[in-house]
Amino acid sequence: MVWLWLALGVSLVVSFPGMISPVGFTQTVLRDGHQSLAATRMTTRQMLPAVPVLDEMGFAGLETWGGAVIDACLRYLRENPFDRLRALKEAAPRTPHVMLLRGQNIVQYTSFPDDVVEAFVRCSAEAGMDVFRIFDALNDPRNLATAVRTVNACGKHARGEICYTTSPVHTLEAFVAFGRELRDLGCDSIGIKDMAGLLTPKAAAELVTGLKREVGLPVVVHCHDTAGLAACAYRAAIDAGADGVDVSIAPFANGTSQPDTIRMLRLLEGHPRCPSMDEEKLAWLRQHFEEVYRELAAFTSPANERMDADTLVYQVPGGMLSNFRNQLAEQKMMDRFAEVLAEMPVVRKALGYIPLVTPTSQIVGSQAMLNVKFGRWKNLSQPAMDVLLGKYGRTPGPVDPELLKEAVRRTGQEPIRERPADRLSARMGELRAELAAVGLPESDEHAVLHAMFPQELAGLLKSATAVPGGERVRAQPEAKGAVPLPARIGTRYKLRIGDVDHQITVEELN
Amino acid sequence: MVWLWLALGVSLVVSFPGMISPVGFTQTVLRDGHQSLAATRMTTRQMLPAVPVLDEMGFAGLETWGGAVIDACLRYLRENPFDRLRALKEAAPRTPHVMLLRGQNIVQYTSFPDDVVEAFVRCSAEAGMDVFRIFDALNDPRNLATAVRTVNACGKHARGEICYTTSPVHTLEAFVAFGRELRDLGCDSIGIKDMAGLLTPKAAAELVTGLKREVGLPVVVHCHDTAGLAACAYRAAIDAGADGVDVSIAPFANGTSQPDTIRMLRLLEGHPRCPSMDEEKLAWLRQHFEEVYRELAAFTSPANERMDADTLVYQVPGGMLSNFRNQLAEQKMMDRFAEVLAEMPVVRKALGYIPLVTPTSQIVGSQAMLNVKFGRWKNLSQPAMDVLLGKYGRTPGPVDPELLKEAVRRTGQEPIRERPADRLSARMGELRAELAAVGLPESDEHAVLHAMFPQELAGLLKSATAVPGGERVRAQPEAKGAVPLPARIGTRYKLRIGDVDHQITVEELN
Repeated sequence: MVWLWLALGVSLVVSFPGMISPVGFTQTVLRDGHQSLAATRMTTRQMLPAVPVLDEMGFAGLETWGGAVIDACLRYLRENPFDRLRALKEAAPRTPHVMLLRGQNIVQYTSFPDDVVEAFVRCSAEAGMDVFRIFDALNDPRNLATAVRTVNACGKHARGEICYTTSPVHTLEAFVAFGRELRDLGCDSIGIKDMAGLLTPKAAAELVTGLKREVGLPVVVHCHDTAGLAACAYRAAIDAGADGVDVSIAPFANGTSQPDTIRMLRLLEGHPRCPSMDEEKLAWLRQHFEEVYRELAAFTSPANERMDADTLVYQVPGGMLSNFRNQLAEQKMMDRFAEVLAEMPVVRKALGYIPLVTPTSQIVGSQAMLNVKFGRWKNLSQPAMDVLLGKYGRTPGPVDPELLKEAVRRTGQEPIRERPADRLSARMGELRAELAAVGLPESDEHAVLHAMFPQELAGLLKSATAVPGGERVRAQPEAKGAVPLPARIGTRYKLRIGDVDHQITVEELN
Repeated sequence: MVWLWLALGVSLVVSFPGMISPVGFTQTVLRDGHQSLAATRMTTRQMLPAVPVLDEMGFAGLETWGGAVIDACLRYLRENPFDRLRALKEAAPRTPHVMLLRGQNIVQYTSFPDDVVEAFVRCSAEAGMDVFRIFDALNDPRNLATAVRTVNACGKHARGEICYTTSPVHTLEAFVAFGRELRDLGCDSIGIKDMAGLLTPKAAAELVTGLKREVGLPVVVHCHDTAGLAACAYRAAIDAGADGVDVSIAPFANGTSQPDTIRMLRLLEGHPRCPSMDEEKLAWLRQHFEEVYRELAAFTSPANERMDADTLVYQVPGGMLSNFRNQLAEQKMMDRFAEVLAEMPVVRKALGYIPLVTPTSQIVGSQAMLNVKFGRWKNLSQPAMDVLLGKYGRTPGPVDPELLKEAVRRTGQEPIRERPADRLSARMGELRAELAAVGLPESDEHAVLHAMFPQELAGLLKSATAVPGGERVRAQPEAKGAVPLPARIGTRYKLRIGDVDHQITVEELN
């Protein structure tokens, strides 16, 4: 232990004389904070009063866009997502804006042709985006290549994200090798994306040390505090020389979100790399976001706020397990819960140890259920066969060869060795034509949104053009309309049933 | 930073060759876990299936008794608390049992005469208690002396607890000096009791290092994860040579309770001092306590489960602030919340920087409210005057001399310099006589309970003797009876209001 400190200390002093600079905090409250804890429902109107203050704090970045934000803007908030980005950029011009991009899937769940990915990146860069956090659920670098190349061409910052998970093939060496591939693709920095909150302090220290030494790019760590490991993992990562960590602002922090900023500052108190921030402004920001959190009460849940020990016991992401319980209950298989859980490592191994993250967690869970219900591999789901056939990309480990033969036999298709997007034709011309055909504006922005969310875009554009002067409908979240309750979450009511008075509050039942 | 590691590493190797032994985990789920998260309502019946398993895990101690447990047993659960202790001891004979004792206050809020304290300690030791965690809210060693001396005389382990707080007089030197006083009183080990969850990793490292070096006794750290600092503070304390930390079991863990055991093991993964525990048994224990948590749903609250950023922003304990908001609302003073908060440091300073913990947090909060409402010191509360006059013991810093004069003038009483209990006469004879007079059994156990909870004890003894064969009523928690709702927390209901169907759940409102 002592020798480890010594060795680490010396190597840091020798190799990284800059490590005593403060660690950079990237602020996620405008994106992952509310995506993780309030179903991505924060509106631009709710953000704007805080944005100039966020811009003054000295954050290394403001994550303001990407992930589920574009979907939520179109589907629930009736906001033009590019307008949101422009508004946030205008309100916070000093701090680099950061977004999460799902590689070839852009911000959807399936691959898009290269020309759509390129157009999306260009439009985002033009609307003000500075730093693109780009990831692929399988860590297949081919699924990141087009996005990284386009970000490079736009003169913006490409951060290649490593999806962190645990399995026999997810060794330190494998992660570091992937880091090298990301560097060679043209990434400007490396992100460690711990979506399930599984990164331990030991793993964080090893991974950051290895990546810093072998890849030579800045490393930024993004953890979810789902299992209560994130803050300690950050400390270990910072000691190992990480350049940045992602933090949020309570109550959009901790639990399934990133650690709270003030909390992280206290945890780094006296640490030579602790950044200096105006705590009065942080307290003001917290008050602001507490009000917003109350406004979004229809979309928040105590289950997400508290730490989830399931993640630690079963070593699967917390969100997955709750979905999974619901699925088993629907199938009347709750008595076989333990069996299905025990089957999951078998399925995951056969599918090449794919990380458990949307949508792969659902694929693994469903197949484990089928194996228990009908006998192992008697019934293969279509998505499981698609993974076997390489349709999602290169799996981290090899898939089971017998099972692959079986998938080939059942589908009549050969396995794919090329990059999935290589099988897709250019679509931008067609997308523009489709928009023009229904009388909608055929800009690149509209075309890329139309590619991913055709109905939602059409709905937005119709409602926007219906407003005199073309003013966008910057609507309130649909909370009030969508929840069929006169009651507001977080408000107390006195309710009389029979002759008994009850003080009640109302909770959402997922 | 590097030099700190070097210095620390070397001093540890030189001074504490034993530091590479695993850190001891004391398990609090049977006491502080449910006291912090379920209003101390876990019954012996709910505990017993888990106790033999807990006894096999290799915990350094099982906290099973003390704090609010005796009160809750008598008042709500209709259990004889000494019977509980004997039952738990019989079910877990291998692991030392640990209790929390409030010094001269025993398990109440005011001082008791020495003979009552002595009798209580002797009865507890005879019923099976091994380790007595003894504290005083003001850290006045005179309020611990009788308890420590009696524990010594019984041949049991006395742990002197240091209530951790922050103030100009609560310096590292002052805490270490108090540690020396505790050693000189006869304590066998030192506890750091961080009731408000304010201990940062830096403070933990300094405090443990200082106490280990200057006091020379084993040091055990007890943190609440209220603000999300506890797990990191534990790691820092363990690196600095702490002998033990207190952990609980989810869902009776994290938030306002101690960190979860499995979580803590993950956070220490690869650490040379990580203890080895059977994770399958831990998973079984978690399942067991999850069921119990559901049974106690009437007493749990999401607000306690999640981290409380208020604690970090206002630097006052989380529980205090929520009480405080209610008090201000009752007084229609919510618009003066900021003013009252700003007044608190003024009051705390005038009262000699007393730690903010029950009951001193209420005393400081109420006086701050009075100061804002009527003008500073225009209206002095009786408890504030009692603090000034020394009736709670010696304050950490000197009280304001002008204010003390004012308290003397208003009460006509002189300040107390002696130990508060020195003014109390022996009571055991009188207590036994009172029991005998109403036909109740006059054992020492009954006498000490009668001293603290006369009505509750009488209620218990009457209900017990009413059962044929004298069998104790080991009742369910009063949840069902005590909460005037037909609805059960955690259950979904469909509720029709007007012509709208609602799925509802019900929450307790403090």
